[in-house]
Amino acid sequence: MAVPRTLEWIGGPDGFLRLIDQTLLPTRLECRDCRTVEEVWEAIRALRVRGAPAIGVAAAYGVVLAVARCPAAEGEQGVERACEYLATARPTAVNLFWALDRMRRASRENSRLPDPEAFRRMLLSEAQTIDKEDQEMCRSIGRVGAELIRDGQGVLTHCNAGGLATADFGTALAVLFTAAEQGRNFRVFADETRPLLQGARLTAWELQQRGIDVTVICDNMAAQVMKEGRVQLVVVGADRIAANGDTANKIGTYGVAILAQAHGIPFYVAAPSSTFDLGLSTGEAIPIEQRDPREVTHGFGRQTAPDGVQVYNPAFDVTPARLIAGIITEKGLIRPVTEAAIRALLD
Amino acid sequence: MAVPRTLEWIGGPDGFLRLIDQTLLPTRLECRDCRTVEEVWEAIRALRVRGAPAIGVAAAYGVVLAVARCPAAEGEQGVERACEYLATARPTAVNLFWALDRMRRASRENSRLPDPEAFRRMLLSEAQTIDKEDQEMCRSIGRVGAELIRDGQGVLTHCNAGGLATADFGTALAVLFTAAEQGRNFRVFADETRPLLQGARLTAWELQQRGIDVTVICDNMAAQVMKEGRVQLVVVGADRIAANGDTANKIGTYGVAILAQAHGIPFYVAAPSSTFDLGLSTGEAIPIEQRDPREVTHGFGRQTAPDGVQVYNPAFDVTPARLIAGIITEKGLIRPVTEAAIRALLD
Repeated sequence: MAVPRTLEWIGGPDGFLRLIDQTLLPTRLECRDCRTVEEVWEAIRALRVRGAPAIGVAAAYGVVLAVARCPAAEGEQGVERACEYLATARPTAVNLFWALDRMRRASRENSRLPDPEAFRRMLLSEAQTIDKEDQEMCRSIGRVGAELIRDGQGVLTHCNAGGLATADFGTALAVLFTAAEQGRNFRVFADETRPLLQGARLTAWELQQRGIDVTVICDNMAAQVMKEGRVQLVVVGADRIAANGDTANKIGTYGVAILAQAHGIPFYVAAPSSTFDLGLSTGEAIPIEQRDPREVTHGFGRQTAPDGVQVYNPAFDVTPARLIAGIITEKGLIRPVTEAAIRALLD
Repeated sequence: MAVPRTLEWIGGPDGFLRLIDQTLLPTRLECRDCRTVEEVWEAIRALRVRGAPAIGVAAAYGVVLAVARCPAAEGEQGVERACEYLATARPTAVNLFWALDRMRRASRENSRLPDPEAFRRMLLSEAQTIDKEDQEMCRSIGRVGAELIRDGQGVLTHCNAGGLATADFGTALAVLFTAAEQGRNFRVFADETRPLLQGARLTAWELQQRGIDVTVICDNMAAQVMKEGRVQLVVVGADRIAANGDTANKIGTYGVAILAQAHGIPFYVAAPSSTFDLGLSTGEAIPIEQRDPREVTHGFGRQTAPDGVQVYNPAFDVTPARLIAGIITEKGLIRPVTEAAIRALLD
């Protein structure tokens, strides 16, 4: 199977970032090459690359592209400007800011490098380390979480927290991929995830590629599927997790968590440690991105609401920690979800 | 405002049924003329006319069309055949069977009418009575329910239970139309209602036509909108209500009811008495229509899920009575919802 990586740096310090244009899936699998920081910003904003860990990695490579165009002496300043710019692409996922902070730190610690070529090489090396670490974290998350999946279960997931949302292999889906690799049989229900249908377009595609039994449902069918006893576990990804465990994720996640609780189904979050924002005591302070009403009214090439109608289109919601049975990280499982348990694992 | 009626008989006993083709809304307002019972069956199956009360009225007119083509002596048999055929159009809404039963009874009671012309006139008269009664029931539901709406409230509704779902004026939306006529100000959130988007396409359009403040949201945003304190009341329609108050309605309604309960928001059902099926003790026995997977995978004029993926597409779900604060009928408000209260009001 020759599926390209979600995103990949091609060439040396003067190379470019190649990424799957996820807006075209599942009907077209095409890559897009980003050769400027502006192209990376646009790819993040337009959701060509999306998923909290993946946009962190993409942004790190974006910094390399920005500085490759700066006069050498201005390298550190260039990194600072690129980070400020890339941080405006999307507000909610903290992994973006986390990756940019790593690039900033690397830049500061190496600002005395003798020649501009070496400075760029150093930046690329740091971005590639972030990329590599993300891949390793995903594998670890898969191993930690796979223990939760039992033979014959139904598992519901929302949006896409798969290989396409990370450098490779995913977070929530890594749990399922690993359980399948370990020989367990289970069935997945993928919420289609309006407005942009990442569940129907991306999650279903990834599971299908790996031969895992997947059924697409509309978001509003989740309650019925649970009531019918078809789901024994929910696992989703995360865009930002506060110190107390409150978790921002794709809009609709909070509703799924309430429905899971009402049906006695455990609800798990899978995310790398870079998703935690311990500076926020609760989820209240997580900024929620509002997106274009046309995503709702003109989502798929056809107008589906009257001209001029008002639309509310928050891209994320926050699930309170009390609804989360556990958080699966590359360092282990946090269960129950308490601030003390989170700090103990991450410190 | 020259909006045509949802459905209307044009001409005398040899006339035809004209209905708004609701699959084209909101971008095109076009009528379709049904001159055969097969065309009425197709219009119901394809959701050109939909909503439990409206398909009851449409089916009654369909019987007239069927018999107009029969030799006169076979009138009663023709009615029987037409009723059996029309009953196969959609399985969940009981109003369809209720209306067909009324046509059957009228046919039986009048089978000795001297001439075929008189038999057809009698059938048309019965269908027009059902139509007229539905309009009156909707106005009564509006008056009963409007008392529940307070100035400044946010009201959430799911799918379309408006004028388009009935002969005129609606059930859940009749409550809002009447409250607006009485001068109250409130704001409506319309769940878009996947897969066929009756909320975005029809409810938003009807509310907009009447100048009522309406905001479209994706189904998976309802929980967040509730959490933000924007909703103080939920009101939806119904396709069938069991003797204990369990209510079948458009898929997603059950989930909304759970979310409303979790946020302490009262959840109301509005429906005419023809929606009750007292022969069913609970909602368990209500048949749930399963529809074409392509409604989910190709809903927006573009393919939104991978080729060959499995899809689960139930058109309805059942909300248990314990989640329903009250049922608004043309005969009064049932609150709390108990079998005794239902029987007392309907008998």
